[in-house]
Amino acid sequence: MSSPLPFAQRLDGMETSAIRELFKLLANPAIISFAGGFPDASLFDVAGIRAASEEALGEATAGAVLGYGATEGVPALRSALVAYMGQQGAAVQADDLIVTTGSQQALDLIAKCMISPGDRVIVEAPTFLAAISCFKLYGAEVVGAPIDADGVQPDALEALIAEKKPKLIYLIPTFGNPSGATLSRERRLKILQLAAQHEILVIEDDPYGQLYFDAPPPPSLLALSAQVPGSRDWLCYAGSLSKTLAAGLRVGWLVAPAALLGKAVMCKQFSDAHTSNLSQQIAANYLASGRMQAGLQHARRVYAGRSAALCQGLQRELGEAVEFTAPEGGLFVWARLTGAGGKSADAASFARRAIDELVAFVPGAPFFGRDPDAAAFRLSFATASEEKIAQGCARLARALQA
Amino acid sequence: MSSPLPFAQRLDGMETSAIRELFKLLANPAIISFAGGFPDASLFDVAGIRAASEEALGEATAGAVLGYGATEGVPALRSALVAYMGQQGAAVQADDLIVTTGSQQALDLIAKCMISPGDRVIVEAPTFLAAISCFKLYGAEVVGAPIDADGVQPDALEALIAEKKPKLIYLIPTFGNPSGATLSRERRLKILQLAAQHEILVIEDDPYGQLYFDAPPPPSLLALSAQVPGSRDWLCYAGSLSKTLAAGLRVGWLVAPAALLGKAVMCKQFSDAHTSNLSQQIAANYLASGRMQAGLQHARRVYAGRSAALCQGLQRELGEAVEFTAPEGGLFVWARLTGAGGKSADAASFARRAIDELVAFVPGAPFFGRDPDAAAFRLSFATASEEKIAQGCARLARALQA
Repeated sequence: MSSPLPFAQRLDGMETSAIRELFKLLANPAIISFAGGFPDASLFDVAGIRAASEEALGEATAGAVLGYGATEGVPALRSALVAYMGQQGAAVQADDLIVTTGSQQALDLIAKCMISPGDRVIVEAPTFLAAISCFKLYGAEVVGAPIDADGVQPDALEALIAEKKPKLIYLIPTFGNPSGATLSRERRLKILQLAAQHEILVIEDDPYGQLYFDAPPPPSLLALSAQVPGSRDWLCYAGSLSKTLAAGLRVGWLVAPAALLGKAVMCKQFSDAHTSNLSQQIAANYLASGRMQAGLQHARRVYAGRSAALCQGLQRELGEAVEFTAPEGGLFVWARLTGAGGKSADAASFARRAIDELVAFVPGAPFFGRDPDAAAFRLSFATASEEKIAQGCARLARALQA
Repeated sequence: MSSPLPFAQRLDGMETSAIRELFKLLANPAIISFAGGFPDASLFDVAGIRAASEEALGEATAGAVLGYGATEGVPALRSALVAYMGQQGAAVQADDLIVTTGSQQALDLIAKCMISPGDRVIVEAPTFLAAISCFKLYGAEVVGAPIDADGVQPDALEALIAEKKPKLIYLIPTFGNPSGATLSRERRLKILQLAAQHEILVIEDDPYGQLYFDAPPPPSLLALSAQVPGSRDWLCYAGSLSKTLAAGLRVGWLVAPAALLGKAVMCKQFSDAHTSNLSQQIAANYLASGRMQAGLQHARRVYAGRSAALCQGLQRELGEAVEFTAPEGGLFVWARLTGAGGKSADAASFARRAIDELVAFVPGAPFFGRDPDAAAFRLSFATASEEKIAQGCARLARALQA
C-alpha cells in the first residue's frame, strides 16, 4: 500500500505472512484444510475453563484480576507453571519465569532485549514463520541450519556458530513447526554443550512437547540443562498453553537467565504492561484443578489418530510421489514432492491446484529464511476428522494429476 | 546487574522506571499513597463483568473465544468500540481500528512501525513515563514541549516541529498524566491543523477522557478531525478500557490511518498474535449490555469527591508552599513546591521525607524527557478515601516541616 507515512526502516521488506493471504481463501467451507497451524479448539475443555473462570471472578481473586497486575505475572500462575514444568522434569523456581502474552511475546521480548540490527540468528531450516519475522523486525539476519528427522544437525550448527558468530539460536526441538521433527536426546545434550562452550544464547520454543502420541519425547533442553554445567546460563525456554489449554487466552511464559529476565520484564512493562490477569488466573486455577492431564490424554489420542490417517492417506493416494517422516507428536507432517512418475516437484503450484480441488496446505518455501526447498510443503492434521483427512488425501492425488 | 549476555544496543541507558522502585516501598499498609497511577479497582463492576464472562464462555461464543483469533481483534468488540466512540462524537468504522493488549501496546506498535533510531518524538513535558520509555526503546530522541493548564502550547509546538522535524507527536490531551491538564478546544483544532499542514503524525492517548467530574471535556482530536481537512490522515487515537471497565483485562484499541493500521497488524502478529479473546469478548458483551454509563457516572462522582478532598487538603495543610491547578477529571493533581516560607522546593527530598511520615507521592522529574522541573510532583487521588486523603495531606504538611 502506498502511503505518505514515513515508516521505520525496520519495516523495509517486511510483509504480512504469505500464509495469512492463503487463509483468506479458506473461507470456503467445502475446502478440506491441512493448512492451519492451529490446534482443534473443539478439544479444549470448555467446562473446565468455565469453572476456572467463575473461580477467578469469585470473591477471593476478582479484585486482583480486574485491577492492574505485576508485569512478571500473577503469582499463582507462576507457581502453577513451576509445578507443571516440574512434572515434565524441569526444575525451575517461580522467579525464573515470567508470564507472557502467548509464547509469541516471549520471542518478541527476547528479540527486543538481544538483537541489534545486523546481528545474526540461527534457526532451523525450515522453522516457524512468525519467529523469523519477529527476529527480522529487530534487524536480525536470519541464518538457516540444516535439519533431518532427528532435528537440527549439531556439527552443521557448530560450523555455523563458528562462521556466523550468531547472537542467538532459535529451536523448536520437539515436534517442530513445520518439520514435525524431534531432536534426539543425544543431540540435545550436544546443543547444550555448544551453548555453554560458545556462550551462545539458545531459545527452546516448546509449544507442542505435551502433544506426543505414544511415548513422551526426550526431556526438554530446559530439563536436560541440569546435566550440562553452565548451559542454563545460555538457555531460554518459551512455554505455551495455546495448544493444550486454550489459544484464545494468550498465556505463555518465558524461562531465562536472571539478567535477561529482568530486561524482558522492563521491555514488557513498555509493551503491554502485563498479560490479561483473567487469562492468567484461569490458567492458574485450571492447572491447580488437576484436569489438565485428562485433557492432554484425550488430545493425544485424537491427534495420534488424525496423524495416522494423514500418513496412511498420503501413502495410499500419493505413493512414491511424496516422501515424509511420520511425526511422533505435534500437529504437522512435513512432506516433499519427489517428482516420481514425471510429476511436478513444485509445491507452490501444487498448492494452487489443490485449492481448485478443494483441499489446502501450505507450500514450504516461506518457512525457510533463505534457500527454500521448493518441493516441500506442510500438512496439518490437527483440525479435520479422520474421514475428512482421507477424503482430503484423495483430493491431493487429483491435484497432483492435474 | 552485570551479566555476560550481549544485550541489544537499544537497552543501553534504559532502566525499569524509577516509579517502580518507589512502589516497592508501598507494601507498608500504614502508608497513605498518592503515588499510584491506577484507577480504584473496587469501582469496577464485578457483577457486570461476571455476567459478561459467563456469556462469553457460553455456547454461542466459547469456541471462538478459546481458539486463535484474528490479529485485528474480535469483530463484536470492534463494532462495540465503534458505537462507544460514536457516543463520544467520533465517527469511526470497525476497519479503522484494531484491538490492542492495553493501550500501552498501541503505543508500542506505533513506535515499532514509525520510529527509526535517531528519529525525534515530541511529547508534553511532563508526560506518561511508559510512553517515553516505549519510544526510547525504538531509538527515539524524546523532546519535551511546554504545557500549561490548557495543555500543550501550540506556538511552542510549532516552533519545535520546525526545529526538530519530529517523526511523531505524542499527547494526552484530556486530563493528562501526570499534569491533569486538558487541552482547550481551540488548541485541539490548532494542533490538528499543524498535523495536516506539516504532515506530522499525532498520537492522541485518551485513557482518562470519560472520567470527567462535571462537564464533559472538549471533543477528542479524533472527533474534531472531521472539522480539519486532511488531519485524519495524520492522527492516531489510542483508546483504553483500563480506567473505566477493568485494567486487568488488558483491552485497548488503536485508530490509525489505513496504511499504518496495516503495518501495526503485521507487527502485532509477530508480537502477541492477538489480544486475549476472552478479555475481548467480555468487553464486547459488557459494552453491549448498556451497563457502562451507570458505572462511569458512579466513578465520576467518586473521583470528583476525592479530587476535591485532595485539592482542599493541599490548600488547607500546605497553603502557599504548593501551587496546582484543580483538575476537571482524570486521576491526578500535578503540584509544585513554591519554596514559600523558606521551605525546600526539592520534590525528590520531599518525597523521601514523606515516606518517613507514611505518605507517598511521585516526584516529577522522571516525567520529563529532559530538563526536569525539580519542584514538581504528582499526586493521585484515585485510590484513597476522602478521609484518608485528608489525613494524607496532614502528613504531607509534617513532611514539609521536617
